[in-house]
Amino acid sequence: MTQTDPALAAHRCCDGCGGGPDSEVSDHTRPALEPLTDALRQIVEATVLTAVDDDELRRVHEELAAINTRLRARLIPGTYVAHVPAGDPARFWNSPVVGLRNAIAPPLVIERDSAGRVDAEFRLGGAYEGPPGLVHGGISALILDQLLGEAAAAGGKPGMTGTLTLRYRRGTPLGPLRASAWIDRVDGVKTYVVGHIADSEGPTVEAEGLFILPRWARGESAKDAWDASGPGRFE
Amino acid sequence: MTQTDPALAAHRCCDGCGGGPDSEVSDHTRPALEPLTDALRQIVEATVLTAVDDDELRRVHEELAAINTRLRARLIPGTYVAHVPAGDPARFWNSPVVGLRNAIAPPLVIERDSAGRVDAEFRLGGAYEGPPGLVHGGISALILDQLLGEAAAAGGKPGMTGTLTLRYRRGTPLGPLRASAWIDRVDGVKTYVVGHIADSEGPTVEAEGLFILPRWARGESAKDAWDASGPGRFE
Repeated sequence: MTQTDPALAAHRCCDGCGGGPDSEVSDHTRPALEPLTDALRQIVEATVLTAVDDDELRRVHEELAAINTRLRARLIPGTYVAHVPAGDPARFWNSPVVGLRNAIAPPLVIERDSAGRVDAEFRLGGAYEGPPGLVHGGISALILDQLLGEAAAAGGKPGMTGTLTLRYRRGTPLGPLRASAWIDRVDGVKTYVVGHIADSEGPTVEAEGLFILPRWARGESAKDAWDASGPGRFE
Repeated sequence: MTQTDPALAAHRCCDGCGGGPDSEVSDHTRPALEPLTDALRQIVEATVLTAVDDDELRRVHEELAAINTRLRARLIPGTYVAHVPAGDPARFWNSPVVGLRNAIAPPLVIERDSAGRVDAEFRLGGAYEGPPGLVHGGISALILDQLLGEAAAAGGKPGMTGTLTLRYRRGTPLGPLRASAWIDRVDGVKTYVVGHIADSEGPTVEAEGLFILPRWARGESAKDAWDASGPGRFE
């Protein structure tokens, strides 16, 4: 939102947000946010791989510290997901897997069908390395947790992750990859989803997940659901 | 390395590295790299949460693009782990979980004992959110994969992740957390490790992992090990 745009200024959703009407809290900021985050992803990788001298690193640090202060001059109040309502197009922009404003995310762009099948093609570079030349096993787990959860949701059965099991068949090379997940079976509030990450030669990591419809989505309040502590919370 | 430091310049480990003697490829750069990466982590979070106007976002994007170009003026050749030798103190600085030069990493600082027990205290902020106010389930998986692998290694049984099973007992709140892992049992080249992430009220996510000593660490070459494709690779 520019300071000279009275139309948007009139539709600020809340004092801390700076966004547009309620239904598009931050949507108008996408053309500005997306390239910023892309540049930030590049810097995250460059910081892992750079061999410039220490004087240059110190100069860059000073500039980054100043940029951080500027971005924090105005922040969304509370946490992102708690602030952006369900159904808002900007709802998942914060995600560390698919988020267009999160530089941790590769990001994955996930294609969905109504039967609960999801697919994604993506590239993992130097910031995601574990063993030499290979993807960190935990990064594969991060991606598969998201993908299996989205498959459950795409099939009309959204849920919290109950259990996730990963089988590492062979090393996953850095570079272009694809991943898929689909619903295996549904048993009441429990949805069983399977999927994998693959390189050009086939699957490298296989996953199976149990996703459980949270109590608040079954008619109870979110507070009631979270107040029920222990393993029973997900039953 | 500064351009006025002939002693270090004479000990450059390779043309693309800019580092010191072989045994400390990038160690002298730590005082410059660590604060830079810390500032970058702050920016990653700030980009998720910022509500500054689009004009400011566009100005920041231009500055970040220029910084990216400067950091890429000189890069380590190939991938980081393939370039930095085993035993080098900078070996894991690239890690997306513990790496001091990777802004994806919180980072975890892991304490180890020789019996294979590892512990870490850390804080997860807005860049790691999944459900409202809670840690993304895949981020918990990422952290536990690293921690269980380090427990296997701390006990003298390093290995590649074979399987990893995560049980989500309840939501993990953003904020201060701790995690632990230890060896449950060893069966030949297979090491079984268990662990959890916990908040102030106890464990939130439990994990069990099977780590397998790779063939190249049993006397075969790395190439032989990776050339043996399929599930048998990890047997």
